[in-house]
Amino acid sequence: MRRHHTRLRSASKEVVIGHDRPFCIIGERINPTGRRIFQEQLREGDMSAIERDVAAQVAGGADVLDVNMGVPLTDEAELLSKAVTMIQSLTDLPICIDSSVVEALDAGLAAYQGRALVNSVTAEDDRLAAILPLVKKYDAAIIALPNDHDEIPMESGKRLELVRKIVRVATEEYGIAIEDIVIDPLAMPIGADTTVGNTFFETVSGIRDEFGLNMTCGASNTSFGLPGRHALGAAFLPMAMTAGLTSAIMDARTPQIVEAVKAADLILDHDEWSGNWIAAHRAKQAAAAAVT
Amino acid sequence: MRRHHTRLRSASKEVVIGHDRPFCIIGERINPTGRRIFQEQLREGDMSAIERDVAAQVAGGADVLDVNMGVPLTDEAELLSKAVTMIQSLTDLPICIDSSVVEALDAGLAAYQGRALVNSVTAEDDRLAAILPLVKKYDAAIIALPNDHDEIPMESGKRLELVRKIVRVATEEYGIAIEDIVIDPLAMPIGADTTVGNTFFETVSGIRDEFGLNMTCGASNTSFGLPGRHALGAAFLPMAMTAGLTSAIMDARTPQIVEAVKAADLILDHDEWSGNWIAAHRAKQAAAAAVT
Repeated sequence: MRRHHTRLRSASKEVVIGHDRPFCIIGERINPTGRRIFQEQLREGDMSAIERDVAAQVAGGADVLDVNMGVPLTDEAELLSKAVTMIQSLTDLPICIDSSVVEALDAGLAAYQGRALVNSVTAEDDRLAAILPLVKKYDAAIIALPNDHDEIPMESGKRLELVRKIVRVATEEYGIAIEDIVIDPLAMPIGADTTVGNTFFETVSGIRDEFGLNMTCGASNTSFGLPGRHALGAAFLPMAMTAGLTSAIMDARTPQIVEAVKAADLILDHDEWSGNWIAAHRAKQAAAAAVT
Repeated sequence: MRRHHTRLRSASKEVVIGHDRPFCIIGERINPTGRRIFQEQLREGDMSAIERDVAAQVAGGADVLDVNMGVPLTDEAELLSKAVTMIQSLTDLPICIDSSVVEALDAGLAAYQGRALVNSVTAEDDRLAAILPLVKKYDAAIIALPNDHDEIPMESGKRLELVRKIVRVATEEYGIAIEDIVIDPLAMPIGADTTVGNTFFETVSGIRDEFGLNMTCGASNTSFGLPGRHALGAAFLPMAMTAGLTSAIMDARTPQIVEAVKAADLILDHDEWSGNWIAAHRAKQAAAAAVT
């Protein structure tokens, strides 16, 4: 099975997601969900928190930044468009444009310079019909979730069926290149149901082996409600990478989790001459020496 | 494919290794290799370091203790026999009796109370003929390495061939139960050759899928010569567990590595009701509160 490369670009920088590449870290932070103060600020037109979030995630090692502006009772399209322009003035990292509102995705894509990743579409016919033409129009890549009618299938076989549908519809009906489809295999909270981890890994290796597609997921979901979330994230991502996950929307500001991803890159032979690992270790030593 | 349970016992405690069980942590510390002072002490008949090593590994979370007494210019059989008796007076954890000298294995097994794990045999005919009768005689379990004539095969296919040979010879010629064979799929230093990690994972899932056998490995080998060894160990073991590794001879004294294994147990649904994870978190909080 051929394994695909998904190419994302800002105005000046390309990021390639692939099974033979270092893991693509998509910073999850620019998202008002569950952040009351940030929501309040956005409602008042204060976008200064974004500046700090961009800086922290770039420093932490993000390769791409997810941007979600889903604040109730605001014009999400306008906010997302403004946020995209602002973030592109702050960093050259490509952006993952994240909304459930089609008009907001359209506005965000219109404002974006480069080749974006769109987050997301499901396997539902009306969502595919609404979002895939935008993906095609703006020459973007798309994150697709194998769920249907707001129901998340709990068996990997059913998820794979929906992936087959998504791939067929996107490539045959909307002319989207297969390498521009990034599947989100649906990482769920393990604290609520301890079987979801194994289902996730089965789904990931199934998608890798059948389609060679790239995959991403909301990694922080898995540890929701459990203690020791950083340690759980630091174990989960290397495990998912071993199964075939090539990217995650994740906490790029926690060194333990980012370091675990970099270690897994080295172990999976995605870090040529161990260069990234050794350079990161030297930088850490230099930083420690500068403090003392 | 049925997945096997390997049962080890001390005089009073049973440990079960299995694909549906929490990972079995075999403490690697009671081994004079590379420990000059410890070697010197053992030569002079001073075994006091063992007491500290047992206590530290039990506190760290070891389930089994590996015991190696390979000190040049000593009577290894006598040392190993003494060490086994001493350790069994200190802890109820089962022991993995580790030697390349057949007479030492025999003496260690004779001194041992319970059902030991023997470390190790290779696929070479003369080694199989020398060690398997001891395993049978003492009703022990055996760690077997899929290498031949001192050459380590660099492809997983060749390693699987040697596993087939070991299983056939051990069960058909020596009457050893298949569940008492624990394969060491050969974890090698990634710093020297970055492809060995993928070969290892392929070998592990191949052995799981074809035989359902339990597996262990010398986990610290993988990070040899690289910086950031604890972080590498903490990523490597959850990855190997995802592929199907059920045990490791490892550093049980480093909380980051043991915590990563416990996190992976939870994620793989080997920690019922997340009980071990939550209990460990509470103990950590209690310890932190006691300090302040």
